[in-house]
Parts: sequence; C-alpha cells; structure tokens
Amino acid sequence: MIAILVTGGTFDKRYDELAGRLAFGDTHVPEMLRLGRCRVDVVVRQLMMIDSLDMADDDRASIADACLAAAEPRIVITHGTDTMVETARTLAVAVPTERGKTIVLTGAMVPYAFGSSDGLFNLGSALSFVQALPPGVYVAMNGRAFKWNEVRKNRETGMFENL
Amino acid sequence: MIAILVTGGTFDKRYDELAGRLAFGDTHVPEMLRLGRCRVDVVVRQLMMIDSLDMADDDRASIADACLAAAEPRIVITHGTDTMVETARTLAVAVPTERGKTIVLTGAMVPYAFGSSDGLFNLGSALSFVQALPPGVYVAMNGRAFKWNEVRKNRETGMFENL
Amino acid sequence: MIAILVTGGTFDKRYDELAGRLAFGDTHVPEMLRLGRCRVDVVVRQLMMIDSLDMADDDRASIADACLAAAEPRIVITHGTDTMVETARTLAVAVPTERGKTIVLTGAMVPYAFGSSDGLFNLGSALSFVQALPPGVYVAMNGRAFKWNEVRKNRETGMFENL
Amino acid sequence: MIAILVTGGTFDKRYDELAGRLAFGDTHVPEMLRLGRCRVDVVVRQLMMIDSLDMADDDRASIADACLAAAEPRIVITHGTDTMVETARTLAVAVPTERGKTIVLTGAMVPYAFGSSDGLFNLGSALSFVQALPPGVYVAMNGRAFKWNEVRKNRETGMFENL
Repeated sequence: MIAILVTGGTFDKRYDELAGRLAFGDTHVPEMLRLGRCRVDVVVRQLMMIDSLDMADDDRASIADACLAAAEPRIVITHGTDTMVETARTLAVAVPTERGKTIVLTGAMVPYAFGSSDGLFNLGSALSFVQALPPGVYVAMNGRAFKWNEVRKNRETGMFENL
Repeated sequence: MIAILVTGGTFDKRYDELAGRLAFGDTHVPEMLRLGRCRVDVVVRQLMMIDSLDMADDDRASIADACLAAAEPRIVITHGTDTMVETARTLAVAVPTERGKTIVLTGAMVPYAFGSSDGLFNLGSALSFVQALPPGVYVAMNGRAFKWNEVRKNRETGMFENL
Repeated sequence: MIAILVTGGTFDKRYDELAGRLAFGDTHVPEMLRLGRCRVDVVVRQLMMIDSLDMADDDRASIADACLAAAEPRIVITHGTDTMVETARTLAVAVPTERGKTIVLTGAMVPYAFGSSDGLFNLGSALSFVQALPPGVYVAMNGRAFKWNEVRKNRETGMFENL
Repeated sequence: MIAILVTGGTFDKRYDELAGRLAFGDTHVPEMLRLGRCRVDVVVRQLMMIDSLDMADDDRASIADACLAAAEPRIVITHGTDTMVETARTLAVAVPTERGKTIVLTGAMVPYAFGSSDGLFNLGSALSFVQALPPGVYVAMNGRAFKWNEVRKNRETGMFENL
C-alpha cells in the first residue's frame, strides 16, 4: 500500500473560467491513476491545496506529521516545484531513514489540466521510484530520482539537476 | 545512459485519416520524452513497428540481439501488450542476469495519440523502474513492475497481474 | 430548436482497449456540446452507429424518414465522410426544399476521441451553418458549406471540394 | 477570402511554465485551422495580444481601423470575452453596414491550450457564421450568433445571452 499525499502545486491547478485565472479545485490524482490504469494499492490524502511559494513552516510541519502518522511505508507527495526541495529537506530531518519510509516528492511544470502537461509522466515515475528505492527522501522529476540533499531546481531551465 | 528499443504495439499506433484505420508511423517516444521534460540520457532505437500479435520468433530473436548488442546496461522496450510476456520470457533466456542488464518492457492499452492513453504514465514508470531495479527482465504496466516469470495479462480486464 | 441526428462515422469512433481496435459506443455529441458551451436548443437522436462504408439504401431511407418526421426545421446529421455526399443526394430527393428544412451533414476525418480530431471544429461549423443557411441540403466540412450537388470528397487529400 | 484579426483574450492564453502563470505568446489560430482541416481562404493578422479587460479606446480604434482597411469583406475577430460586446459596439459605429462587411467576434471561456477549451468549437462556428450572415457586426459564442446590440455576457454563468 502506497500513500499519495496531495499538497497542491502546479500539478493540480485548473482554469477557473468565470474568474479567468488559474485556481485550485479537487485534486486530479484519482483521475490520473484511472488514466494510467494504475493497479497499485494507493490511498490518496489531500492535505492542503496551495501554491508551494505560499507554503509556510507550519504547512511543512503538517506534511511531516502526515508522513510520520501514515501506516504506509511508501509515500508519494505531490507538491509545487518551486519549494519542493525545501520540503524534502524538512522531511529528511523530521522523518529519519530509520523509520523505514521511502518518500518521493513529485510535481509538474505544467498543470495536468493542460494538454501539454508532464504530470502523468511524473506520477508514473514517482509511483515507480517509491516502490523500488530504499528508505529515504527523494525528488522525482524529469524522469530521474534525486536524493533530497543532492538536488536543486534550476529556475532558468525549469529542470531539476544534481547539486 | 538508457536505451529505449521501440517495437511498435498499441503504444505507437496512430490514426491514418485517409485510410480510416489505425496504422503505424514513426514512434511517438521522442515526443513523449519532451512532454515529460525527461532529462535522463536516453537513446531511442526503432527496431520494428508491428502489432505484437504479428510478432514472430525471428522478431523476438532480433530484439534479444539488440539487447545483447546494446552498450547500455539499462534497456526499456516498448511493445504490444498481447505478447509482451512472451517476449519477456525470450529475453530472460537470451540475456541471462549475469550480463548485468536491467530490461523493462512496457506498452499501452490505448494509443498515445488518443487523449485517454496510459502511454505517458507507463513510459514514466518504465524509465524509473529501469533505473532502480537490479539486473533482470521485467514488465512494467499498471504502475507496477513484474518479474518476467511472475506475470500474465488478464485478457478480460486488460490488466497485468501476478501469476 | 435544432435536431442532431447521429449516424456514426469516424466522428464517433472510439478505441476498444480490450479488443485493440476502433469501435462504436454511444455518441460523443452531448459531451462535445458541453465542451463547446453550446447554448443552442438541440435534441440529439442516435439513429444508427455505423461506418458510412457499411451504409445501405435502407439506412439512407431511414435517415430521410427521420428528417421528414422531425418537427425541427433545422437538422444537423453526423455521418462518415466516405459516403456523406451520397446520403446528401438521397436526402435532397427525399426532402424537397419546399419542406422548408435546412439539413447540414458533417463528420470528421479523425475520431473525436483522438487529440488531433477535427470533430469539434466541424460540429461548431455545422451548427452555425444550419442556423444561417436557407432551406436545402448541405455538407459542412473543412470550414465550408457545400450544396449537396456541388461537392465531392477528394480521397487523395481527405478534403471536400467543389465539383 | 476571410480575414482573421487576432487581439488576444483567453482564447490565446498559454501556460508559461517558467513563470508559473498564464501568458500570451503567438496566436494558436493557424494551428487550430490546421486541426480543423480548414480549407477556407483565410489570412491571419495578429493586431495585438492582450487581455480584453486591458483593452483601451485606442486599441478598439485600431481594431476598427484594421476592419476598415481590410480588403476582405468577411472578418473574424478573436477577442477576450469580458469586453467583446463593447468592442462589437465600437465596430458597429465605426464600420457602418453600408460598407458591406460581415464582422464576427469570437473568443473562448477556456484557453485553447487547455484540453477542455471551447476555442475550436467557437472558431468553427465564427468562420461559418461569417460566411453565411449578411453585413453587420455579430458576436459568435455558445454556438449562436448575436447581433452586436442584442447581446450581453452573463458574468454569473459565463454564457452570452440575448438582451
């Protein structure tokens, strides 16, 4: 059993056609799992639905609490890309490897609701890495898995890369 | 460096609008890698472009040859789902684990060119499993990785499951 | 009030993922009208769901009957492109202009369920022409409206053109 | 020959993945015409690329000038929905019916780049109405054509309706 903790981010933004701007609604994760014909046992928990630039220490603490409280040893977290590495760092401290948890953060550069989104690719990637990697905290983006302390987002290119 | 060997299958079928039927053209894999913002070093080799129900022993032998000839230790093979398990079996015999190669077969239930395809999810999954799993031959479908000798396609549900 | 008579054709083909081939299910027209935020009063009647190459004289007679029986003076017919012109000819004879009906046949070169379909464009076009054109039988394809006796499908290009 | 004058609006918004927000780039109209297999003779002129809430009197004057200067008697204008009716009013004054021009404004509630856009439907609709309607200024939205002085956008529902 894998827990998918949803926190928002570009991944889950949608277009609010009355307001004419991007907004959050319910998560697209269950629909994406259906599209991927995913047959892994997963439970989806929507923790919050925010832009990662708006994520405060309190929010990160509550994500860490959710990881510690989860009965599942394998956890995927959907997250905005801008501060994904910062949250990974918080989790690495709060959820030590000895707890035996494999935690994989992922997200998207383009909202899933757009035709050109990388979200479905990233979700398939994160769900696979979380099953195959040993305990620890990782970022899965661009088809790769990075250890939490060996990664940064390159804001010029929008790509994640090794430190 | 990862080799992606393309053999065809539903994954790569497209709609031939003049003939009014499904057909093969060039592979969608490079386009899918762009969409997934994939930054893994990959080389794509189009071995054949056929329906897996039309795959003969000769074709399987040539896939095995391509795996053996590949300098890359990690190989993803896109393949029709109907006989994917049979090809996995051929490869497990032809490319023994001692060769140190991790080979992951994947495909799609719905062509990538359709809006409702599982292809992008599966490609993200296969590329991730191939990086994280030890040498051996695997099938990556439905978000899971199966050892070649522990899997079958359930033709009633279209899902891959453990034997 | 406009009647939309559904007869099948490429427009409504979908991918049967268990059989691995194109097939018919229910029509996509209501979903397309929602996507187009269409607010025209329409009633959708699914007359048949067949490939237009399989359409027999009986089928064409029943489409003509449905046009004559319809209370609505404006009728859009979704139809396979291969014999659309032939059905238009049948209707022009069976439903004389004096009946005051504007009948517009349309279809698609690529199934709506594919990302690259012309279906939504064609439906918007046909629904608009049917409101604006005088009584008669027309084919609406490629952004144009052709009188039934001034059009043919060019099988080399897949485009409709003037005779 | 039909002129398509592009002014921006939701229709043409795209997702800027580095900035993480909606933005304008080049117009999607040529790509949409290809998708619709449109064979109407059209010329696309990008006049401006702005949100219609930011449209000033000067901008409306320049759209009117472009209509007057156009050799084409039939003109489609893509435009944000929020002030589409206001621009229609400006054009009705600046381009009197005696000039013999049929002008149809259209737009979208959801950007074309989103999977769920009404843009392709609306473009098919506007291109059809502009060919079939007599000289005058119209708004084509929701599958309908409204005279410029008989329409308003209902901001609660996002739909255009008769005054």
